Amino acid sequence: MSNSIGTLFSVTSIGESHGKCVGVVVDGCPAGLKLDLAALAAEMARRRPGTSSVSTSRNEDDAVEILSGVHEGHTTGAPILMLTWNRDQDSSKYDALRDTPRPGHADYPVRIRYGGFDDYRGGGRASGRVTAGFVMAGAIAKQLLAMVGVEVHAYTCAIGGVEAPEPSGDWVEAAEASIVRCPDDAASTDMIKVIEEAKSADDRVGGEVKCIATGLPIGVGQPVFDTIEGDVAKALFAVPAVKAIEFGAGWRLAEMRGSEANDPYEIRGGNILTSSNNSGGILGGLTTGAPIVVRVAFKPTPSIAHPQKTVDLASGTDAEIRVTGRHDPCIVPRAVPVVEAMVALVLTDQILRRGLIPQVLGEKR
Amino acid sequence: MSNSIGTLFSVTSIGESHGKCVGVVVDGCPAGLKLDLAALAAEMARRRPGTSSVSTSRNEDDAVEILSGVHEGHTTGAPILMLTWNRDQDSSKYDALRDTPRPGHADYPVRIRYGGFDDYRGGGRASGRVTAGFVMAGAIAKQLLAMVGVEVHAYTCAIGGVEAPEPSGDWVEAAEASIVRCPDDAASTDMIKVIEEAKSADDRVGGEVKCIATGLPIGVGQPVFDTIEGDVAKALFAVPAVKAIEFGAGWRLAEMRGSEANDPYEIRGGNILTSSNNSGGILGGLTTGAPIVVRVAFKPTPSIAHPQKTVDLASGTDAEIRVTGRHDPCIVPRAVPVVEAMVALVLTDQILRRGLIPQVLGEKR
Amino acid sequence: MSNSIGTLFSVTSIGESHGKCVGVVVDGCPAGLKLDLAALAAEMARRRPGTSSVSTSRNEDDAVEILSGVHEGHTTGAPILMLTWNRDQDSSKYDALRDTPRPGHADYPVRIRYGGFDDYRGGGRASGRVTAGFVMAGAIAKQLLAMVGVEVHAYTCAIGGVEAPEPSGDWVEAAEASIVRCPDDAASTDMIKVIEEAKSADDRVGGEVKCIATGLPIGVGQPVFDTIEGDVAKALFAVPAVKAIEFGAGWRLAEMRGSEANDPYEIRGGNILTSSNNSGGILGGLTTGAPIVVRVAFKPTPSIAHPQKTVDLASGTDAEIRVTGRHDPCIVPRAVPVVEAMVALVLTDQILRRGLIPQVLGEKR
Amino acid sequence: MSNSIGTLFSVTSIGESHGKCVGVVVDGCPAGLKLDLAALAAEMARRRPGTSSVSTSRNEDDAVEILSGVHEGHTTGAPILMLTWNRDQDSSKYDALRDTPRPGHADYPVRIRYGGFDDYRGGGRASGRVTAGFVMAGAIAKQLLAMVGVEVHAYTCAIGGVEAPEPSGDWVEAAEASIVRCPDDAASTDMIKVIEEAKSADDRVGGEVKCIATGLPIGVGQPVFDTIEGDVAKALFAVPAVKAIEFGAGWRLAEMRGSEANDPYEIRGGNILTSSNNSGGILGGLTTGAPIVVRVAFKPTPSIAHPQKTVDLASGTDAEIRVTGRHDPCIVPRAVPVVEAMVALVLTDQILRRGLIPQVLGEKR
Repeated sequence: MSNSIGTLFSVTSIGESHGKCVGVVVDGCPAGLKLDLAALAAEMARRRPGTSSVSTSRNEDDAVEILSGVHEGHTTGAPILMLTWNRDQDSSKYDALRDTPRPGHADYPVRIRYGGFDDYRGGGRASGRVTAGFVMAGAIAKQLLAMVGVEVHAYTCAIGGVEAPEPSGDWVEAAEASIVRCPDDAASTDMIKVIEEAKSADDRVGGEVKCIATGLPIGVGQPVFDTIEGDVAKALFAVPAVKAIEFGAGWRLAEMRGSEANDPYEIRGGNILTSSNNSGGILGGLTTGAPIVVRVAFKPTPSIAHPQKTVDLASGTDAEIRVTGRHDPCIVPRAVPVVEAMVALVLTDQILRRGLIPQVLGEKR
Repeated sequence: MSNSIGTLFSVTSIGESHGKCVGVVVDGCPAGLKLDLAALAAEMARRRPGTSSVSTSRNEDDAVEILSGVHEGHTTGAPILMLTWNRDQDSSKYDALRDTPRPGHADYPVRIRYGGFDDYRGGGRASGRVTAGFVMAGAIAKQLLAMVGVEVHAYTCAIGGVEAPEPSGDWVEAAEASIVRCPDDAASTDMIKVIEEAKSADDRVGGEVKCIATGLPIGVGQPVFDTIEGDVAKALFAVPAVKAIEFGAGWRLAEMRGSEANDPYEIRGGNILTSSNNSGGILGGLTTGAPIVVRVAFKPTPSIAHPQKTVDLASGTDAEIRVTGRHDPCIVPRAVPVVEAMVALVLTDQILRRGLIPQVLGEKR
Repeated sequence: MSNSIGTLFSVTSIGESHGKCVGVVVDGCPAGLKLDLAALAAEMARRRPGTSSVSTSRNEDDAVEILSGVHEGHTTGAPILMLTWNRDQDSSKYDALRDTPRPGHADYPVRIRYGGFDDYRGGGRASGRVTAGFVMAGAIAKQLLAMVGVEVHAYTCAIGGVEAPEPSGDWVEAAEASIVRCPDDAASTDMIKVIEEAKSADDRVGGEVKCIATGLPIGVGQPVFDTIEGDVAKALFAVPAVKAIEFGAGWRLAEMRGSEANDPYEIRGGNILTSSNNSGGILGGLTTGAPIVVRVAFKPTPSIAHPQKTVDLASGTDAEIRVTGRHDPCIVPRAVPVVEAMVALVLTDQILRRGLIPQVLGEKR
Repeated sequence: MSNSIGTLFSVTSIGESHGKCVGVVVDGCPAGLKLDLAALAAEMARRRPGTSSVSTSRNEDDAVEILSGVHEGHTTGAPILMLTWNRDQDSSKYDALRDTPRPGHADYPVRIRYGGFDDYRGGGRASGRVTAGFVMAGAIAKQLLAMVGVEVHAYTCAIGGVEAPEPSGDWVEAAEASIVRCPDDAASTDMIKVIEEAKSADDRVGGEVKCIATGLPIGVGQPVFDTIEGDVAKALFAVPAVKAIEFGAGWRLAEMRGSEANDPYEIRGGNILTSSNNSGGILGGLTTGAPIVVRVAFKPTPSIAHPQKTVDLASGTDAEIRVTGRHDPCIVPRAVPVVEAMVALVLTDQILRRGLIPQVLGEKR
């Protein structure tokens, strides 16, 4: 079941970029959740393309249709099938690309893997469009998490070498107010500039997203394999273009001594807390009670109009390719809600496994 | 089954640091593999403590006992239970530590998670000793991979801020010749110095391991969740102290433009190859045929003799702790074979899922 | 993932009796299968209600819509979402039944399990309508099985105490020619009579289906838990009204001596075969090469117009209920293709796990 | 992971009949269970051979060694490895049998499946000895179930055509007092006679076990695949020699009308109960609150000293075989605790999935 993830709250991804639809089946959602459809639509809107100068002009309304598992506004405990229909796809360019695999895209290994039977149009299953289904499932996960006081928020912390300073105050709203989803005004301006420059050079640019989950109780997680880190990482690598992940101080820990790296405990307000959070809220694969902090690196979207070297599979000769069409110059801003969704999915599953959300939410009538 | 990983080649971890044993059950190993016991012992020896000045003096011979699944020297297709008995544990210090959780260790969340019933001695399940079982399973995986021409090697690429240059030539042997497992002589010397300095300051130091898998055919992997990256990351986060992972150019991709990041295709020697490997051998979750390159960051081992702030759980007051005992000043050199093992486990599972290793290796009699 | 089954060829069931649709996601179908849509429609037609006097008059055309995983007529290797829209449901009677659970139906435990949030209309998830999705997946499984020479056929072997003799000759066609799917003319006539009698008495009647799978190679199956018997049984108990299962001589074996029960081996036509098949083609959970024979008992459909004792959940008092509406007087004839589907699903998964069907069927271009 | 079963309470079977040991890994047992070792030993003793004239003379003490997951008498939440060493095996006869597969045994398909690399001695993995591990896990499961008032008991209800009447009163003790585990004195006597007759004719005889689980709350189970029936059936078919299973009235339901088969509801003592239990305590895959009733058919053990037809695999000719050695003339009495164990394992998993047993049982210190 390689298209599924999760033990008790499990998610099965379906659909292709230029097929009929993309969507998701959520199995294991507790019964009795009053679905907040406006919140679901809002999450989809955050991920939706075509909303600013820094995203693709492909225009999908991304309305979500719920086909099962919900009755009279509440989840029933049965599998929830949600999907959005693909409408604005333009497959005309993909036949021409078929024999000259695009560098940096999954075209070539996918073609070999599936004997050429893959639905290659628009990148098929390897397209970022598939993440629309993740966001649907994530929206339900976020509602469940809210019931136990857990919130998951992310922001763009770097684009093309421009790094945002550590945010403070109400950065969540500030991030959403920025078209690059960076809460820092100055960094935001610089990031937009970097993207515009790449765009006008027919190029693309990568970046980073930082995601923070707060409100988790201590001891959520399942050693030794189904750790918070392992499950979050696995989920995040399902997002196209993700190439690196760190928790807490991450790479900087490799340069530290133990005396710097360890997060000391202290009593604060009657609670046992750590005075730093280098561990990113996770020790031994379990939550420490401190915020979970995960940072993710995205490579630049590989569809560039620059001439690139490739090969012609039909003739077996070197070739050149220019990838035109509607592509995001930088996927990072739109990836922010996707990262949140993946983290939310994993935390929901883990919290259900800890028995902290009941399987039936209230009783009807 | 949070202590298991893998779909067709699956591994279940068992044992505690100061319990009777640590080990592993391997389910799904093809029948007919002539087990190379010397190779298994050699892998265990690579991970074994007490072999140099930069590792702990805990001395375990780590002889592996195979209790099932092997008959007349060959695997039978049945579950293989392998374990090594714990002999040299010294649990005397752990009772004193029980109420003052060690910063940076899993003590506190584990205690909360398991209601205080965990076998805390020596770190219990959260101890690095558990990785001995991983190495056993990895040794079998490596033998299977060798049958299809896949090799997995790793080395220490950084310790405490000292970075090794990109290796060249026969770096595998060079790495093994170094007590810190770094193939570069100069860097090796500096790393040893950094470790010795930390050690004499009663401190510990972190570092990085880079692992490279060669010989993979194109198109191994299972989108969208059971990707090579996702599965490798999940497996690696089961290794204590791992806090960050990147594939290929990883974080540097976030700063690149698409025109730099994309790996162009070219015909070389009649084969379709990429002229660079920023993707780390993986696109769309599938192997590209280029070497898989994964880099892992380890935090410093948290057991330091320095006084550290903690809390006394019995009295609910702030406290101070000094963690003495036999601990590695730097775990990175011993982690090298563990990283290889985790990567080998995942690749074996993925290659079996692709049907590239038969389920029966030859026929007997 | 309680709504999913299968390791490599996995099936996730979705939909409710009176919701928008019922369907299935098939994950793990090899790429390159040229889907035989006529065969798919034919399987659906076999299960379809409203086709004879012995089935319900609910009339669904059960046209299957394929929403993903198929491109240019071939499977792509991606998840296949198939569904059929519910059109002819009549939910009017179910509100009245809500507080008086129908004896023999799942109403009461489902209500308790899901806190009353279940979509109870038409029996919801517990309805036989859900098996439409099984048949869709089964149709694909049958196509895959045909590629390796495996065929799965079933027939009605008993209804309401009328037992059919062991079939011979071309019983498959004969079974399909009978509206009760019994290949024996005389038994068929008696079965119809038994059903008609029950129907005119406002009652329902149970029966048995026997399913036979031929063409299996020796040694398919996975001990000790994922046996052929275990997996087939688990799949079959997902079919509403199934209450008993036997393989081969089944219950009669409990009365036999070993000397009768054992199937002797002999050389026949150069092959090693058994001269009897009391084991139903399975020993040690593995196929023996002889046909797999499984018999399944269905209880009578519980919706009867007879007055029945129940309780009024609102008032907490004893009550009486009469269940009217459109229901099959005997579900067994329509269950025949469903039983075949479940057996086909399991065998496909097991054969894929044995590596006997490649993951890519040919190469396109 | 074909040797594992269970989602939250999972069991991995290990060991061979004549290997070093047989055992089990239990993953997911809640922390804090005070293990009742006497109860564990008692369950093992019930299954142990060599205790009466109707069982094999192979004499194993079957002492259980616990190698992980238990600390200071309590489960820790970590995987529990339990095993018993094989001591009294006699492998001398098996080499002679190697080329003449025993009818009714798994010899031939296992040999084909594993290319001849299987540990065939004593039947290897297909031996009933493997069930010793099931009983170990079942003993823990029973302790967990007892905490929520669930009890699982079984008895021999038929042997070689002798059927016991429906038991009444305290049949549990009566069954244990009988060497065939049948609570009815007269039937017990007849069963012993049937076994003795078969034994003196160098033959074996089959039989049936009925298992009853009481105290279950309403609504335990997971539709549509992880039903109580599906999971119990799958687990039971892992027990060698099981060939048929029914729940409640089972096969008799196939002959009934709905008006007979349906279990009417009534108010009794303020509770909603059914006045009959034809459904065997399960509707829609969920518990109804009535006792779960499952009946299992065992074929005769196939090792008979009678001459039987087989083939010589070396020469490819017909051959004759006589299977001597120490074998149970009837496995049914010893299978009683094994059936209980399998039912207990499944119910424990299902009850954990319903959140009815906490994951930490109390708090230490």
